[in-house]
This record gives sequence, C-alpha cells and structure tokens, in this order.
Amino acid sequence: MIIDDLYTPCLIIDNAKMNSNIARITSHIGDLGVTFRPHVKTTKSVPIALKCRDGEIGPITVSTIREAEYFADAGFTDIIYAVSMVPGKLARAKALIDKGVELKLIIDDAGVATDISTYGEANDCIFKMMIEIDSDMHRAGLSPDAPAVIEVARALHDGAGTALTGVLTHAGESYNCQSDDEMIAMAEQERAAITTAADNIRKSGYPCPIVSCGSTPTATFAQNLSGVTEVRAGVFVFQDAFQAGVGVCHNNDIALSVLTTVISHKVNQNRIITDAGGLALSKDHSTGGASFDCGYGLVSDLDGNIIDNIFVEGANQEHGLITTKNGDLEFDKYPIGTKLRILPNHSCMTAAAYDEYNVIDGSDEIIDKWQRCNGW
Amino acid sequence: MIIDDLYTPCLIIDNAKMNSNIARITSHIGDLGVTFRPHVKTTKSVPIALKCRDGEIGPITVSTIREAEYFADAGFTDIIYAVSMVPGKLARAKALIDKGVELKLIIDDAGVATDISTYGEANDCIFKMMIEIDSDMHRAGLSPDAPAVIEVARALHDGAGTALTGVLTHAGESYNCQSDDEMIAMAEQERAAITTAADNIRKSGYPCPIVSCGSTPTATFAQNLSGVTEVRAGVFVFQDAFQAGVGVCHNNDIALSVLTTVISHKVNQNRIITDAGGLALSKDHSTGGASFDCGYGLVSDLDGNIIDNIFVEGANQEHGLITTKNGDLEFDKYPIGTKLRILPNHSCMTAAAYDEYNVIDGSDEIIDKWQRCNGW
Repeated sequence: MIIDDLYTPCLIIDNAKMNSNIARITSHIGDLGVTFRPHVKTTKSVPIALKCRDGEIGPITVSTIREAEYFADAGFTDIIYAVSMVPGKLARAKALIDKGVELKLIIDDAGVATDISTYGEANDCIFKMMIEIDSDMHRAGLSPDAPAVIEVARALHDGAGTALTGVLTHAGESYNCQSDDEMIAMAEQERAAITTAADNIRKSGYPCPIVSCGSTPTATFAQNLSGVTEVRAGVFVFQDAFQAGVGVCHNNDIALSVLTTVISHKVNQNRIITDAGGLALSKDHSTGGASFDCGYGLVSDLDGNIIDNIFVEGANQEHGLITTKNGDLEFDKYPIGTKLRILPNHSCMTAAAYDEYNVIDGSDEIIDKWQRCNGW
Repeated sequence: MIIDDLYTPCLIIDNAKMNSNIARITSHIGDLGVTFRPHVKTTKSVPIALKCRDGEIGPITVSTIREAEYFADAGFTDIIYAVSMVPGKLARAKALIDKGVELKLIIDDAGVATDISTYGEANDCIFKMMIEIDSDMHRAGLSPDAPAVIEVARALHDGAGTALTGVLTHAGESYNCQSDDEMIAMAEQERAAITTAADNIRKSGYPCPIVSCGSTPTATFAQNLSGVTEVRAGVFVFQDAFQAGVGVCHNNDIALSVLTTVISHKVNQNRIITDAGGLALSKDHSTGGASFDCGYGLVSDLDGNIIDNIFVEGANQEHGLITTKNGDLEFDKYPIGTKLRILPNHSCMTAAAYDEYNVIDGSDEIIDKWQRCNGW
C-alpha cells in the first residue's frame, strides 16, 4: 500500500523524522546524566514508546489510567500517572498495582494524601505517591517552599497505605517562552523548584528518591540537571507547528501529519476546501495568539514538502478551509482530489481523533500501521 | 449505577432535555410541512437517531462514510452524505449502495460529476447525486444563479453513472447571527437560495426532486419553507453553550454534559483544576469571540443546576481550569473529589472524544448507555 491509497483523513508518521526527534532529546538528556521517562500522552502507542529506549521497555509517564492499562498490558511496569489522583479513582490504580505495575501517583493536598492512605490500608495496598510541585504558576502543584509540601510528605510517609516516592513538576509555562534564552532560564527555574522541594522534604526527615521534571521545551533546552533524577517530555516525538513556532524545532522536524483530500474549490473566496476539519485536526488554535499563527495547521504536499504560502484558515467539523497568506491561490496546483498533508498545531490533540498511525519512511510506501489507545 | 459511580471524564445525556429539544424542532418543521432529515453528525448514535422519528427509521444526514456504514448496519437506508464527494472515495459509497442503501452524494463541480459518472459506469453503479449550493458564502457550493449549477446538473443528468437527485445547502453563517430577526432573515435567505437553484435546474429541463436546506439556527427560526422538500439540523438534539449564546436555545436546554472531578485547588490563582481538559471537552472555543464567552464550557453541579459565576477558563490536555467570572472562588463548595458537569461550547466536537453516552432522566440513576461511532 502507498500513501495515495489511504482513505482520508488519516494520520501519517514520517519515521525518519520521528527517529531523529527521539534521538535528539534522548541524547541530550543522556548527556546530562539523568533518566529519560517519555510522556506517552502524545503518541499513546506501544511501538513508539519502545523506540524511545532502543526497543526496550523503560519508564514512562501517562496522562490517563487507560494509558497505564494499555501500556501495562504490553509489559511496561514503571509508570507515573502525572495527573492529580483522587480517592474515587483508586480502584483501577490498585488493579494495576496488583498486576505488578510500579504505578506512581501524584497529589498536592494533605487531605487527599490521608484519604488515599486510608483507602490503601483498607484494601491491602500501598500506593507509591509523589508530590506535585508548581514551578511556574502554570497549573497544579504546591510551591516548592510551601509548608504544605512537608505536610503532604508527612501524611504520605506516615500513612499506612502510602509511600512517599518523590516529587514531580512540569514547567508548562515554557510553552510561552519567546527565545532560546528564556527556555534555558525556564529549564533552570524548573530544576531549581523541584530540587528545592526535594531538599526541603529531605531536611524534614522524609525520603525523596525520585526528582522528576520536564516538558518538551525545558527538556530540549536544559543545560544542567543537577539534583534531578529524571526528565519527562511528550510532544518531542512528533513535534508540531506550535513547538516549531516557539523555536523548539523546525517545521521540517514535524513527524506527524494528517493526510487530506481537496474536495472543493471556492475561487470567489480564495479557498480550497479539504476533508480535514475540526475533528481531523482538532480545534487547537494554540498558534493563534503568536506571530507565527498558522491557523489550524501548515500544509505540505504528499511528499512532505511544506507549501509556504498556504495554511488552514478554518476548521468546521468535517471541512478544512485552506487559503493563502498572500495573494491568490493557484487552484490549478490543487485540483479536486489532490492529497495534501497538514502539519498540526498540537500533535497531542490531533492524534487523539485516530486509532492508528500510518508509517512512511523515505518513500510513499506504508511500511507499518501502529495502533494507539484513546479515552480514559 | 448512579451518576456518582461513573469514572470521569465521561458523557452524560439528560434524556428529558434531549427529548424536549427533539420535540421542539420536529414539531416546528412538521408544522411547516416538510420532511425532517436529522444530521446525525452530532450524536452519531442509533438510539438517538431513532428518537428523532418516534422510534422509527427515517431519512438521515451523515458527515462521514463511517457514519453511513454504522447507520446502514442498523437498518437506515435513506442517507445523504453531506460533504463533497471525490472519486477516490467512491468504493465505500458503492459498497453501501450495493447493500441497498439509498445513498445520496453531493458535489459542486462539473469535472467531478463527469469523473463520478465514469466510475459509476465502469462499476455498474448509478450514484444519486445532489448539487451543493452556497447560500451564504460560508463554505462549499455554487451560487444559486451560477451557470455552473446548470453545467453540473447537465453532467449528472446525462452521465451514465449518475442520477441528478436534487440540491442541498447549509446556511452555516447562521451561527454568526446576532438576533432572532437575523436568524429569521438567514432562514429565508437559505430558502431563497436553494429554491432558486432548484427552479433554475428545472427551467433548464433537468429534474430536481429533493430541495434540502438547514442548520440548527435556520431550522429553528424558519417561518416559511415553501419550495423546500426537507430540512436538516444536527446540534439541536443536545444544543450547547454556543447555540444558547446566539439565542437558539437557553442554557437550561443543553442536554449534553461532561462529568468531571475536581482534582486540585489553586487558591493563589483562584482556580479549581478538574480532570476534563482539552481532550474531554475539545479545544473548541467558539464562544470566544462573542459577548457570551464561556471559555471551554459552562459549569453545573451533579444535578444539572448551572453555577452562574464559574466557567472553564482553560483546557490543557487532561486538565480543566475553572475560575470565577467575578470575585473569589468559594473553594469550600468544591472540595477535591467533587463531581461537576461541564456544558460544552460545541456538542459535536465534545462528544467525538467518547465511545458512549450515559443517560439520566430526572434522577441520578444511569438508565441507559448508548454507543456512538467515531472516525472516518
């Protein structure tokens, strides 16, 4: 089968670009002397997670319990579920632990710590727990110097159903950095926050074996990871137009695309209509606020060459609207039926609409199909 | 099982509200004397499509061939695929026709008409074709008075592999109307466009049995459908915050919600964090440009009562960020573990992340689970 035989819309992975993206970050993190724990939330696919460790099963991060179950079924055992745990979700976590998974959960609240311990004690389970630290006011977590960090550490350490296993942070604000220097500074801010929290916990007499931080921008730009034991990153595998826009990669590094077909010409509106709309691309418009706004995606030809002057201006449910940045569309270049590839704004969101990837590598042949898991 | 037993995030349908939404539009379209052909792209679920015709199988509109296959498997036979067809997708259409489905396809190009006829002739198939008409410069289709309408009609009528079956339009610009009067006017504009195209085709000596128009706003506000044979609408079943914002319904009519759990408190940022993020809600921010911006969704309690002062400000992949419109969050009202329901901006996009609906009706009991199809 070749790429032109595929029913559109569907996902294409450029295997060479993906391998290069993986090699770049794993080499950098390796050079800095820490463990790399890929966040599989972007790809949600066993073959790709294996590529992050030369074909071997290694530590991973997940964003849903469903992912944890899917990767556990494939033999992965060292898993951090990096979204705040609540007591109501412990049954599925326990089922994984009972199967032998070294599942680690995160929280940022002492009351929740106690409730999880109570559940663990009542159900003959000891949950390995990490404390989420806020390194940049981006999302969840406790400030590294907050007294609550020690309160949570104490609750987890003293709880009969919990074991304190470490600290974790994610510098999501790195997505708003405007230059390499800002990303380097953000990576150091992330490192400083997580190591400060770890030091505070240890000074209070509690253990803190895992010191985990990361995001694709900070993992890419980190210069020093002293005190950190492991780094997480997810979107680096595919990259996307947003990451290219903030300077984490180049547009030509983007390994994921949505194969689409031109289905209509609107000459009087200078628009080509395709079959990759809001469901096929996602409605993520994260490049919208930036100088590099590419609408709902960059456009490349079937061979992966980015077409500079056109972009996805709009995305209705099953219709993508492509127009020019400047001047008139050359409609003759894109007759109805033409296949194009859209490079997404945000790979994590785009990939989630599909059950499988079609893999190419240097030719138009589909060399493999890889499944992914979705849902919760 | 009761609603509080559900693992979050997941979809909830309020059956009474949905039934009321369906009754309202089917009664209105019935009063206007035309056939109602629901667009199943929103719900993609057989039990819900059946409700649109008192439990009987009726004509439907689909947005993907996958939907056509799913509904055909359930016995639906009168199906319009309302996205421009291209020759490369005909094999699956033919397979449905071979099974006895009265599948109707739409196009807006004479060259494509000829190519489809050629394919049909070569494969012993006559494709029933409709011409897409542009009633509002919203998306695809030919202007009603364009000479190309007659060219396409001729190609379809004369083609050995095609049969001209009618005209179709969708006044998508109705989503930008600002008042009832504007929607009434847009409904009339849509009617005038599609009946003009039908008249032009008939005057040229070609048949035009089906005259199809519709969108939820125009179907709701149409005062006169003279010359129209059928009306399509989709999102009316669930409604959503966008439809409420433009006056098509009230917030209390919204029948779809995402059940979510509070997973973290960020008191220093006046934020509650939930487990319904960008994948659970979609990144559709269609209310963002309007005076009624509700971020990524309105918030209700477990019983469905909308909480006026809070909304979903942000949506990361698996984290929803809820804050207040005014003043400080009352964190004590929403302890970690609390379940809330998020009413989406755009039901079609939100529902697409899930495989099933959980149905409630006047109590917290889950009275049914309905499957839906996704993908292409």
